[in-house]
Amino acid sequence: MSEDERIYVGSKPILSYVTAVVTALQRADSVKVLARGRAISSAVDVVEVTKRSFMTDIAVDDISIGTERLGEGDAARNVSTIAITLSRQKS
Amino acid sequence: MSEDERIYVGSKPILSYVTAVVTALQRADSVKVLARGRAISSAVDVVEVTKRSFMTDIAVDDISIGTERLGEGDAARNVSTIAITLSRQKS
Repeated sequence: MSEDERIYVGSKPILSYVTAVVTALQRADSVKVLARGRAISSAVDVVEVTKRSFMTDIAVDDISIGTERLGEGDAARNVSTIAITLSRQKS
Repeated sequence: MSEDERIYVGSKPILSYVTAVVTALQRADSVKVLARGRAISSAVDVVEVTKRSFMTDIAVDDISIGTERLGEGDAARNVSTIAITLSRQKS
């Protein structure tokens, strides 16, 4: 049993990531939902939909934001990132 | 001097919100940067750009996410929200 699974949110439909989070939380103690740039909004949607409709017993343990540098030379640019750590509440 | 200012991030250019955050942190102890839906990514950009390029001494004290119900009847829908609390580090 792994301790920390990672799910990268991109441009697929929200529900496909929700399914991935639910599956991951059934085998792992905690799951990190990660996203960059425009997908940050989708990552928050994934967590909120999972919590509201699929697994009401999950807790948001930590949210952190940051910046990553993508590309090289003239094409280099800064992209914002988010990491949301979820776990199932022990009850 | 107010203790907690709020800045709502929407669809204007990132730099106009960055200016608002910098101004607010000069008169308040802490500032809450708020956004809904697609603007959540922009709110993270605002905080990251402010921290990186304008005020390197700010700290992210708290990040929380949630859901708000907008509209009524058939038009009602859930929208994700974010609230990022910033303060200047005492040095």
